[in-house]
Amino acid sequence: MKAIVNVSLKTGVLDSQGKAVHHALDSLHFSGVNDVRVGKQIVLQLDTEDKTQAMSDVQKMCEELLANTVIEDYEIELV
Amino acid sequence: MKAIVNVSLKTGVLDSQGKAVHHALDSLHFSGVNDVRVGKQIVLQLDTEDKTQAMSDVQKMCEELLANTVIEDYEIELV
Repeated sequence: MKAIVNVSLKTGVLDSQGKAVHHALDSLHFSGVNDVRVGKQIVLQLDTEDKTQAMSDVQKMCEELLANTVIEDYEIELV
Repeated sequence: MKAIVNVSLKTGVLDSQGKAVHHALDSLHFSGVNDVRVGKQIVLQLDTEDKTQAMSDVQKMCEELLANTVIEDYEIELV
């Protein structure tokens, strides 16, 4: 089973990478972009085929390692 | 309209960040993980509501700035 974890900065937390990308897009004359946020996408290949088990494991991984829950949110999708 | 761009390393390209995360998960006694790949998720807030226009714009942004197409693949989702 594959788990896709999207980690993004919480609303209100300054996203300097996003700001830099936004600025670079402006410099390249891409208008019509109002905001850019940059996050991480982590794809985990898991042994288990048990969805409940996988979700609980990946949640623990996020809390302990993959996300800094003080400033980041995470979303888990199992496929 | 919002565009979500997922940028990931092509298959076969060494993902050192993924390897590091995999190793760290092992150290934390998370077994049952076979592979980890780390990519970027870029969320763009666009002015336009025209899906065709948005897709073509974001594709250009990916080719010119957001992805290094030599080693990276990208996927665009409009929401």
